Amino acid sequence: MAKSMYLLWGSGSPPCWRVMITLEEKKLQGYKQKLLSFEKEEHKSKEVLDINPRGQSMYLLWGSGSSPCWRVMITLEEKKLQGYKQKLLSFEKEEHKSKEVLDINPRGQLPTFKHGDNIINESVGACLYLENQFKSQGNKLIPDSPAEQALMYQRMMEGLPFLEKIGKTGYLLRLLRERHDSALKRNKDNLVTEFQLWESYLENVSAGCYLAGGFSLADVVVFPSVACAFSYGYVTKLERYPKLAKYYSLLKDRPSIKATWPPKWFQIEQRSESLKDI
Amino acid sequence: MAKSMYLLWGSGSPPCWRVMITLEEKKLQGYKQKLLSFEKEEHKSKEVLDINPRGQSMYLLWGSGSSPCWRVMITLEEKKLQGYKQKLLSFEKEEHKSKEVLDINPRGQLPTFKHGDNIINESVGACLYLENQFKSQGNKLIPDSPAEQALMYQRMMEGLPFLEKIGKTGYLLRLLRERHDSALKRNKDNLVTEFQLWESYLENVSAGCYLAGGFSLADVVVFPSVACAFSYGYVTKLERYPKLAKYYSLLKDRPSIKATWPPKWFQIEQRSESLKDI
Repeated sequence: MAKSMYLLWGSGSPPCWRVMITLEEKKLQGYKQKLLSFEKEEHKSKEVLDINPRGQSMYLLWGSGSSPCWRVMITLEEKKLQGYKQKLLSFEKEEHKSKEVLDINPRGQLPTFKHGDNIINESVGACLYLENQFKSQGNKLIPDSPAEQALMYQRMMEGLPFLEKIGKTGYLLRLLRERHDSALKRNKDNLVTEFQLWESYLENVSAGCYLAGGFSLADVVVFPSVACAFSYGYVTKLERYPKLAKYYSLLKDRPSIKATWPPKWFQIEQRSESLKDI
Repeated sequence: MAKSMYLLWGSGSPPCWRVMITLEEKKLQGYKQKLLSFEKEEHKSKEVLDINPRGQSMYLLWGSGSSPCWRVMITLEEKKLQGYKQKLLSFEKEEHKSKEVLDINPRGQLPTFKHGDNIINESVGACLYLENQFKSQGNKLIPDSPAEQALMYQRMMEGLPFLEKIGKTGYLLRLLRERHDSALKRNKDNLVTEFQLWESYLENVSAGCYLAGGFSLADVVVFPSVACAFSYGYVTKLERYPKLAKYYSLLKDRPSIKATWPPKWFQIEQRSESLKDI
């Protein structure tokens, strides 16, 4: 039986060693094996990737400045899945409606994401999938304790109406034909209420803590919207939202977030006049 | 040490037996114990519930006809968590903005859900939480295989834009002041596209299968919207959506769904004229 086994291993790696101990214990000596060098990146060689695709079989199509895309990218960093294939598309050029995207994602939206043959384009779905598939790799993003887990799922899902309200106000500001001042005012009021809500959530969080205790999928999903609000100048009166500002500062330099900061936002200079009162 | 232990057990229950075997193996004889009768429902007695609250410490505030509420109720059924405390509130009477709701859910929305001190009001968050907390109880709602899991997360999250599009069209039909015919037409077109999309998803599903293989959280989240579309007459031309109609038939008599069918929908008789073309 051992003759049909093939082990590619690296010296000094406990996971490799575990397998080798088990093979010895089970009297399966005589298996085919090959020692590879981590230093020479032989664990990224074609021979390994053909058998063990991990992060390398992933493909992400993304757009700069999109919070949903950013969520997936932060998760990939946190789970140590760097090195995945990716392509930056332009919303302005309508590349999210290109054949390449539509073939994978009939909604023609970004992110569009594949892991092997598995397609998960919905950003929160992709984050949940990656955390579940790579539980013990990188940082744990779903807490175990029921209380933290409940809070994590609650805040993570509240991240969706949060982004929607930011998006809606932004849309109405750009829209002219179908826009009513009453609708714009109502949406701006809703957005203020939303910011106040998150401010109150953060008031109940201990110092140095994230939305649900440790850094979790709640932060992965919500932070991009907070950063969006700050970068586009939706939050101009910082003194109104000291906790949100602190949360922003706490996270903006986190390695996974810094490594994936949307290139577009570095260029934003001008703030929208119509948002001064938020 | 055994003196400070207290075991309440039922005869013939393997989980109870497991604990007792372990106590013997660990030489912890002499622990305090009490044999309860399942037949006399002694496992639901105050003594048990005080130590082991399970479903009984749950509290659900819900509104009839709300898809998000229904999702949570189906999940509770599937996970065998019946018997939770619940209260039906009226949207018409604005009871979802009452103090009781707002104290638990600052968004003033239904469902509003508590498990002990843990609050998870976002319906998808509550479903994920319940599945994770009661993994081995009732039906498994998140599949293990990566392919099914990916599809499950994808369809589950796509359930949100699906419901949003149904809601938006319904809202515009009721709204007059800020409504533009162009906006109504666009929303109706979007809804048709959405139905066509789900029809195409179901075309790729094997006979007797659900959205992601076995019955899963994808169905828990999406089915209420499908049922809503059928009940309110949003889908009038059934011949356009044969797969959706089949999916509806396949699920409408599932025990968890039948047991929680929104009371309001039994009364719906009239179909909206403006929806005839969907």
